[in-house]
Amino acid sequence: MTHKHGGNIYEYKNMADFSANINFRGMPEAVQSAAFEAIRASIHYPEPESRGLKKILAERENVSEDQVICGNGAAEVLFLLAMAIRPKHAVLAQPCFFEYEQSLAAVNCRITNVWLKEEDDFCLTENFVSRIPSDADLVMLGNPNNPTGRLVEAKALEAIRAHCRANGIWLVLDESFFDFLTEEAAAKTEEAVHFAEENVFVIKSFTKMYAMPGLRVGYGICKNVSLLEQMKQLTQPWNVSLPAQMAAKAAAKETEFAKETAVMTSANREWMEKELKACGYSVFPSCTNYLLFSGPAGLAEYAMEHGFLIRDCSNFRGLETKQNAENTDIQQEDAVCGKNGYKRQFYRICIRSREENEGLLAVLESFLAEGSRASVR
Amino acid sequence: MTHKHGGNIYEYKNMADFSANINFRGMPEAVQSAAFEAIRASIHYPEPESRGLKKILAERENVSEDQVICGNGAAEVLFLLAMAIRPKHAVLAQPCFFEYEQSLAAVNCRITNVWLKEEDDFCLTENFVSRIPSDADLVMLGNPNNPTGRLVEAKALEAIRAHCRANGIWLVLDESFFDFLTEEAAAKTEEAVHFAEENVFVIKSFTKMYAMPGLRVGYGICKNVSLLEQMKQLTQPWNVSLPAQMAAKAAAKETEFAKETAVMTSANREWMEKELKACGYSVFPSCTNYLLFSGPAGLAEYAMEHGFLIRDCSNFRGLETKQNAENTDIQQEDAVCGKNGYKRQFYRICIRSREENEGLLAVLESFLAEGSRASVR
Repeated sequence: MTHKHGGNIYEYKNMADFSANINFRGMPEAVQSAAFEAIRASIHYPEPESRGLKKILAERENVSEDQVICGNGAAEVLFLLAMAIRPKHAVLAQPCFFEYEQSLAAVNCRITNVWLKEEDDFCLTENFVSRIPSDADLVMLGNPNNPTGRLVEAKALEAIRAHCRANGIWLVLDESFFDFLTEEAAAKTEEAVHFAEENVFVIKSFTKMYAMPGLRVGYGICKNVSLLEQMKQLTQPWNVSLPAQMAAKAAAKETEFAKETAVMTSANREWMEKELKACGYSVFPSCTNYLLFSGPAGLAEYAMEHGFLIRDCSNFRGLETKQNAENTDIQQEDAVCGKNGYKRQFYRICIRSREENEGLLAVLESFLAEGSRASVR
Repeated sequence: MTHKHGGNIYEYKNMADFSANINFRGMPEAVQSAAFEAIRASIHYPEPESRGLKKILAERENVSEDQVICGNGAAEVLFLLAMAIRPKHAVLAQPCFFEYEQSLAAVNCRITNVWLKEEDDFCLTENFVSRIPSDADLVMLGNPNNPTGRLVEAKALEAIRAHCRANGIWLVLDESFFDFLTEEAAAKTEEAVHFAEENVFVIKSFTKMYAMPGLRVGYGICKNVSLLEQMKQLTQPWNVSLPAQMAAKAAAKETEFAKETAVMTSANREWMEKELKACGYSVFPSCTNYLLFSGPAGLAEYAMEHGFLIRDCSNFRGLETKQNAENTDIQQEDAVCGKNGYKRQFYRICIRSREENEGLLAVLESFLAEGSRASVR
């Protein structure tokens, strides 16, 4: 199965890209300089097992070096994790990042999808625990979740942790977008690195905050060192390129940049949410640098005609259109036909600068204004 | 098991590196420029599945695009191949590149080692076919082989191909160093891309010829498209970074650079071979950009004291020192104690510029001149 992700600027050229969730401020200068320097140094192999980078990440996360593993993007960490654990029955909260499912499929793992509901604004509730099958051996959650932008709030997280701990279930928490939370938002959940449990695996990424998705570097943290040893045996010692290692080392120092970004993004997101609602779109609450909303079918194509790439979410499980949903056990019936009677779809947009957001908003507004067009589709 | 490879300039700093087999001419300017440009573009994800690069490689190799797979270095291609095929019993010609064994170990594959013999100058002979066990399902060979620098000559290759084809055995040929062959040398074997068999998989690398090991990009070619599809399911769509993709696209155009390099390297290698023999070292014939030779124990440490990193081969299977060999079924008895009565080890050096080679040679010469020192060790 070939899956369509956001951010494919190669197929759709010269577009303003709101489909990938990348920090609108771009790569910090120090990160870019480090990557430039790394090109010259790339006549040498990268440092084996990213040792120097691991040391810096261990200090940053306040764990020991042997509790860190670096990957060719967080996505490689996901695949190595699935291949090392080889779970038999995993639980996902859908909709979520497609690579969770893809990495589990690579080891023929059975998946139970627990559906996040639109009436709950896609919030993962404590009720989730009751949906974990008795023979499940792994639970994988985004915190915050993609594409919903929702946190796993402290009470639900505590219940899930207790359940997984008591039942010997691996709990994988993907915190790739955690750094976009304001302090206020972060206080509503808990960073997994603070848990001491051996069954918890945390996935982290520099891709989004430091705007370096092209370089490929992510990392995992786990107290279970023997799991990390197994993961290392499933990849080469040079799995993280030299530009990625050097850029990540520089990025690890940019803590002020990250804090400022979180505050700016939050303000821009609140503005965009308000404006979208004023237009007539249904917008779901988010704590990070993207927004999920629903509107008439055809919006993504319309935006593209006007030079904007947005993420059509109809290939996320639980957000399918009728056509996509036929072969799935979709519970999100109203994804097919909304309250307003028009064919409705879900979309995700990245939060960018105020000016860029205004540009996109004008297009999203005019689409609704051209109402006849929407009803034809 | 953590393995020591060449090229670890991070552990041993400020050394002239003869331990990694990288083109001494460095990265071509156009490749470096493309990589620089890619850093700026890395605020975007890499192109999924390296589609643009695959198109260029397919044209270069005269195959269709769906017969090409790109990896995070040739090493990732090896691991994906092992994970997709999941062979039960593989055959290696030892000594060879350690990642062959490592990638097979990742899928718990049994390995039969066929020992290349010093008395044959480590040449793989037609006799190899008779050593393939009847239940073997995969044969993996370097052509040319690392660390021996020897080709699989046409007659032996033809016999191995016929045997593998007749018995449904996968034949994996790693041609990472093939581009260093002069036309004359290349005429003694055959490039695997010319075989039409469905059971043949070819591994190619840009790392060595275009001096870009830090960037991580390699590729595989196979007529069996369904195998490549399976391999793709075991990795993320963004497994090759943007700098690696863009540098490889530029490298694919540098065919003149490669041809010139092959000629220059061949001349420099012949000179070095002659000089090493004149010093008293046993040198094995090579057709590529590195030389295997044997000499007294302690040479690598001595070279390091004088600012040169060379590859101590004592952790290659079949080239072990007594200590390393204890737990293996080593047949290379004379690796432990040579004809001259001193403790003997194998070393590999990269062929670099004439001037650099002279610098290393002076150290290798003075080591033998300090004979007392050698006998103490």
